[in-house]
Amino acid sequence: MKILHDITTLRAWRARQTGIVFVPTMGNLHAGHLSLMQQAKQTQLPVLASIFVNPLQFGAGEDFSRYPRTLDADLTQLEQAGVDAVFVPEAHDVYPEPQTCFIELPDLAQQLCGEFRPGHFRGMATVVMKLLQMAQPTHAIFGKKDYQQLAIIRLMCQQFCLPVTIMAGETMRADDGLALSSRNQYLAPHERDKAPQLYAELNRIKNQLQSGNKHYTLLEQTALNNLAQSGWQTEYISIRDATLTRPKPDSAHLVILAAARIGNTRLIDNVEASLTTGPRIQ
Amino acid sequence: MKILHDITTLRAWRARQTGIVFVPTMGNLHAGHLSLMQQAKQTQLPVLASIFVNPLQFGAGEDFSRYPRTLDADLTQLEQAGVDAVFVPEAHDVYPEPQTCFIELPDLAQQLCGEFRPGHFRGMATVVMKLLQMAQPTHAIFGKKDYQQLAIIRLMCQQFCLPVTIMAGETMRADDGLALSSRNQYLAPHERDKAPQLYAELNRIKNQLQSGNKHYTLLEQTALNNLAQSGWQTEYISIRDATLTRPKPDSAHLVILAAARIGNTRLIDNVEASLTTGPRIQ
Repeated sequence: MKILHDITTLRAWRARQTGIVFVPTMGNLHAGHLSLMQQAKQTQLPVLASIFVNPLQFGAGEDFSRYPRTLDADLTQLEQAGVDAVFVPEAHDVYPEPQTCFIELPDLAQQLCGEFRPGHFRGMATVVMKLLQMAQPTHAIFGKKDYQQLAIIRLMCQQFCLPVTIMAGETMRADDGLALSSRNQYLAPHERDKAPQLYAELNRIKNQLQSGNKHYTLLEQTALNNLAQSGWQTEYISIRDATLTRPKPDSAHLVILAAARIGNTRLIDNVEASLTTGPRIQ
Repeated sequence: MKILHDITTLRAWRARQTGIVFVPTMGNLHAGHLSLMQQAKQTQLPVLASIFVNPLQFGAGEDFSRYPRTLDADLTQLEQAGVDAVFVPEAHDVYPEPQTCFIELPDLAQQLCGEFRPGHFRGMATVVMKLLQMAQPTHAIFGKKDYQQLAIIRLMCQQFCLPVTIMAGETMRADDGLALSSRNQYLAPHERDKAPQLYAELNRIKNQLQSGNKHYTLLEQTALNNLAQSGWQTEYISIRDATLTRPKPDSAHLVILAAARIGNTRLIDNVEASLTTGPRIQ
């Protein structure tokens, strides 16, 4: 596995490939990331991963400085997963001067997580645009765990006509249903025991939707109440269609999204609900 | 010369080249554009021009609808200039859905022309990013006539790490000094007679700067007064350094920029002033 430390090295490696599939990460890799790498391998293209904790997408008071950094273990896992190259830039490679040009996003970026993390999606979209320009992938994979992020990246790539195919990776879960996340390790044992309830509430809504219940606000409110009674501080629970607008009467593919805190740890999750027998959104 | 009517055709042509040099235009070609094509030919790369009048960079009440469209004559000129391919998309190719993602620019985009054309540079940068993604050029040429546009495009490409070399084309002028522009044809004969005064005033400032005069505000004010006395409505005259910030005491390369109206016609121009014997900014 090639370790590419800067943009020049990355571009030299890229120039020797025809197509590549790119899987950007913030490191601290778990089985969720590794499933994206397996999906990447299945394309038969050379696989490029990246590890970069992007300061631009963390707000003041968020966990940028304590975000877990485990580079050596990450590199071992990527090598074992058969990744061909990994791009590990330093902050001064990505931001050699203060960033003054950004990706301006539509109102979707102010909703859901955007309402509670001002500037997060602007910072995320800006660094993803930069990484895509550096790596020039023909394909890139982003996990559905960050469903709103995936939707925004798809929109950005489509609206700026980037010649890249964006692929979605399924969310990996612990046996009890908790979505895998680097932030799970912030949880104290008693918080970890409680954490699967978020997924359980999302699934409860999914089952109601698939039974024909269309009382979205009532379904959301019930889940909010259930979580509050168990001591969660819920930021939002929202039933949307696949593009994250409010469902229309004939929407066949819905997604239920949530962000909630246990103690100081913020968790997000989502569940797709297909109301027909058709294929799920890929 | 290949005429490429849509993105699919453009990409198929692009895939058959290694490097290309790209010269985007809004059509209504004059000798200024053709000098950019000649500069492009000198790179020895295949030359791609584009013709697209971008609605996104025109404000309400500006001249989008009456901007001169002369496609047949433009194609003849491009063919005679030895251009290899020209991309002539329709609005629905560039904007198949309403644009909701934009390039967010720093404060520079609110200054100079940006102060008088709100949203202009945001719309320009957004379409240039899209065209660069569609065409994937290794080189692109923009004229110095639109000096602020050139500076913003350079900043955008640098900050988003686009793998393209931006080249600057010199301003072409009529014998009396008037910078060539599609908008010159809006001028009535008596306005056309007066128009070279803008360049004359910029040159007067340049000569003063090169004589060691550093009273920037006074130099600007004198030119404003001279133009007002001749019936111009001047939007700005501003002495800047090559990156369009206010000159520092040791700035060796300055540029004097102006926008002014004769009657209903808005003209812009600029003159570079090198204060040393070193090379001019390329």
